[in-house]
Amino acid sequence: MAFKIGLLGLGTVGTGTAQILLDPSGRNPLLEEIVIHRVGVRSPDKPRSVEFLSGVMTTDLESIVNDPDIDIVVELLGGLEPARSLILQAINHKKHVVTANKAVIARYGDEIYAAANKAGVYVLLEAAVGGGIPIIKPLKQSLGANRINNIIGIVNGTTNYILTQMTLYGADFDDVLAEAQQLGYAEADPTADVDGLDAADKIAILASLGFGGKVKREDVYCEGIRQVSAADIIYADKLGFVIKLLAIAKGSRGEASETLQLRVHPTLVSKTHPLANINGVYNAILVEGSPLGQVMFYGPGAGAGPTASSVVSDVMNIVAILKSSGPVQTLDPLLSCVHQHYCQITPIEAIETRFYARFLTEDVPGVIGYLGTSFGQHQVSLESIVQIGFQGELAEIVVVTHNVCEGNFRKALAEIHSLEAINSIPSILRVL
Amino acid sequence: MAFKIGLLGLGTVGTGTAQILLDPSGRNPLLEEIVIHRVGVRSPDKPRSVEFLSGVMTTDLESIVNDPDIDIVVELLGGLEPARSLILQAINHKKHVVTANKAVIARYGDEIYAAANKAGVYVLLEAAVGGGIPIIKPLKQSLGANRINNIIGIVNGTTNYILTQMTLYGADFDDVLAEAQQLGYAEADPTADVDGLDAADKIAILASLGFGGKVKREDVYCEGIRQVSAADIIYADKLGFVIKLLAIAKGSRGEASETLQLRVHPTLVSKTHPLANINGVYNAILVEGSPLGQVMFYGPGAGAGPTASSVVSDVMNIVAILKSSGPVQTLDPLLSCVHQHYCQITPIEAIETRFYARFLTEDVPGVIGYLGTSFGQHQVSLESIVQIGFQGELAEIVVVTHNVCEGNFRKALAEIHSLEAINSIPSILRVL
Ligand SMILES: NC(=O)c1ccc[n+]([C@@H]2O[C@H](COP(=O)([O-])OP(=O)(O)OC[C@H]3O[C@@H](n4cnc5c(N)ncnc54)[C@H](OP(=O)(O)O)[C@@H]3O)[C@@H](O)[C@H]2O)c1
Ligand SMILES: NC(=O)c1ccc[n+]([C@@H]2O[C@H](COP(=O)([O-])OP(=O)(O)OC[C@H]3O[C@@H](n4cnc5c(N)ncnc54)[C@H](OP(=O)(O)O)[C@@H]3O)[C@@H](O)[C@H]2O)c1
Repeated sequence: MAFKIGLLGLGTVGTGTAQILLDPSGRNPLLEEIVIHRVGVRSPDKPRSVEFLSGVMTTDLESIVNDPDIDIVVELLGGLEPARSLILQAINHKKHVVTANKAVIARYGDEIYAAANKAGVYVLLEAAVGGGIPIIKPLKQSLGANRINNIIGIVNGTTNYILTQMTLYGADFDDVLAEAQQLGYAEADPTADVDGLDAADKIAILASLGFGGKVKREDVYCEGIRQVSAADIIYADKLGFVIKLLAIAKGSRGEASETLQLRVHPTLVSKTHPLANINGVYNAILVEGSPLGQVMFYGPGAGAGPTASSVVSDVMNIVAILKSSGPVQTLDPLLSCVHQHYCQITPIEAIETRFYARFLTEDVPGVIGYLGTSFGQHQVSLESIVQIGFQGELAEIVVVTHNVCEGNFRKALAEIHSLEAINSIPSILRVL
Repeated sequence: MAFKIGLLGLGTVGTGTAQILLDPSGRNPLLEEIVIHRVGVRSPDKPRSVEFLSGVMTTDLESIVNDPDIDIVVELLGGLEPARSLILQAINHKKHVVTANKAVIARYGDEIYAAANKAGVYVLLEAAVGGGIPIIKPLKQSLGANRINNIIGIVNGTTNYILTQMTLYGADFDDVLAEAQQLGYAEADPTADVDGLDAADKIAILASLGFGGKVKREDVYCEGIRQVSAADIIYADKLGFVIKLLAIAKGSRGEASETLQLRVHPTLVSKTHPLANINGVYNAILVEGSPLGQVMFYGPGAGAGPTASSVVSDVMNIVAILKSSGPVQTLDPLLSCVHQHYCQITPIEAIETRFYARFLTEDVPGVIGYLGTSFGQHQVSLESIVQIGFQGELAEIVVVTHNVCEGNFRKALAEIHSLEAINSIPSILRVL
């Protein structure tokens, strides 16, 4: 008996998925028992690089999620709607779901998992984070014996490519972005990537799995890389750092209960840190737990083949369960999501972190003294304060702090900003 | 209803495992349903850092594997016997087994899996390779959609520590080994580690999972790191390489069927390769497949906490299955091992690889010419041949080849060795 899947979407990832399933030899033998029963697309006449028997392709996506012959619906449409509604309909028709859609899961995961738990079906999403890198299943299944302290990821290939090129060639953000768009590494509208929104979707998903509670997508503090300049990359380099867009979920055990830091921002990473060497479109996710210590997962974070590899692994997983236990009675607690409570989030002002800030100031005596005093008055202890050079008439000063409370740092900055000698503060970055 | 485990062994890993299970808060809630029912040790009076109710500890290990109350036997004894026999007895009593014992699995995996498949129980071994790094389950479950081409690992922490120290401090093998023994990073009898036997056990296990066939442990070609000298590390560095002990399983699609290269040896790795930066006792495993590309798993390859993290994750996995599907009817094909055939192994003489060789020769004119001619006559094409310097009266010459057939290279070496002008060939290393 073959297992029948309904594929929603035949774009980049859908085509990659179909190519694996249509050519199973040399892969896991389970794949030979999987059949693509229906495929839903928007434009029936678009040329496709995979072929199906007539009748398989349709533009009527509802007919797929309602098809009684289909066991597993694979959602590869992207976007919020109709993806969300179709996933929910599939679940209500007792179909298992595999999706690569981080945007939908980060926003509607709650609703979707509640429906799935009620219907007794699995919703798997290995491809939603880290493309071809196995991270969702390891986090659920292999690291659960640990108390997780930190999840830190480079989870957006576009921004990592841009930052890598800026670092290698000293180029400016706008030029590299334009080039990345030409090469297909960045979309025409790059907002979701360069403003950190895609990374925020992904860290919301990882945090929920790693820390065992629901996470509201809007609780993720998010800064993109538009403000990162070639100058900062050079100064960071001199200080022993590279700049990476990191997505961070960090547990902080407080008095009463654990609260969670959730943030995406460009970050100075020490060159000796394992994440410092992750370049180009590659992704990596570092997980720190006790008693495990640090593990890191590295690989291609996007692309047809890698992402399809994860999609198909999820399909195989469900097929393996169906083959071994028959119709699902009770969901495997390590593969389903059953969190009741929301994680409590630390407000950004309350987090403790190190900062890097660059100032343009009048070239008058005592400016460094002013800066030092203002920071000191707000309990911001400094590691270094260095006049790097000049920009025209203005002196350029770089400050690196010790671990300080973000709220105090902000207050100090506000005060400093109002000083007459301070022309501007072109960049404020955090340090890992 | 709690799930009862019987722990065989309460040494480094056994103690780490007990510590997690006895202190479940903040970890996956499944752990609260797991109880350590019996613990088997050799010396009842040894002081222990975990405590059990009286009657839990015993020196009668057979009474544990026969205990009808026990659901899962966790074998953490080490060594071949009585580990193998106890695992088989536990299986015959329909108990699931979790083990960290790569030596037993690499040699008796066949017998053990046949028994487990017959009895309908799982044998899980995440901790047997890569300590705390999730690699076994990802390889079985997450990468199965791919045609695997290569598995390349730094899977022995002791040798990686020694090579890292040699590289950092220009120290010699014997000195670093002595220091590693003092620090507890190497055992009093270091043979299994430094001669590559432990790495060979592990690559045999990974190859079987990745390439989907049985593997005979004795088919793994194995060279350790005793012959690696400080001099080679320095020359390698000048050529842009670091030296690592790699465990390699490489598929080569031939005319008729796929054959497998299986080998462990010190290897020159380009400094830009992801494995070049894995230092100290850390391990990393790189898997290359199609359409995935390269993924790498990195983390602590040994130690009580990391290894116990993997052991407990396996226990949780079995408990999750028992909770969801009840008594196992049919084994999940992604979690069991059902290979029928043996992988066909490429003889070492037939593999193609690059070589690095260092020669000590009389300082007479024409030696470089001799070397070049001899290699050429055996179809060994050279990338470089450089006189590096002198050792006393003797000239020191380093040769790096292109990709060549190992058999041809060996024949050329035999011929060269017989030349009067050649004093000795102190090192022959492969290049990744
Ligand atoms: N691309 C990657 O590297 C990557 C990596 C990780 C995750 N993902 C995720 O994977 C999902 C798919 O991405 P993709 O890059 O494959 O997208 P894509 O290339 O734009 O393909 C989308 C597919 O869905 C179909 N579609 C979209 N809206 C539809 C509608 N309303 N009705 C019917 N068909 C509709 C399109 O039909 P037509 O073909 O007829 O236009 C197309 O086949 C997204 O959630 C994305 O975030 C992608
Ligand atoms: N240590 C690591 O970092 C690590 C990492 C990965 C995998 N592993 C694997 O994990 C396994 C356990 O390693 P380990 O380092 O925990 O070993 P260990 O510290 O030597 O502990 C072995 C335990 O087994 C007991 N034992 C051994 N032989 C016995 C026998 N014949 N009868 C009764 N009890 C016996 C010992 O009892 P007593 O306590 O009474 O002496 C001890 O409690 C091995 O297979 C090893 O390869 C270890």
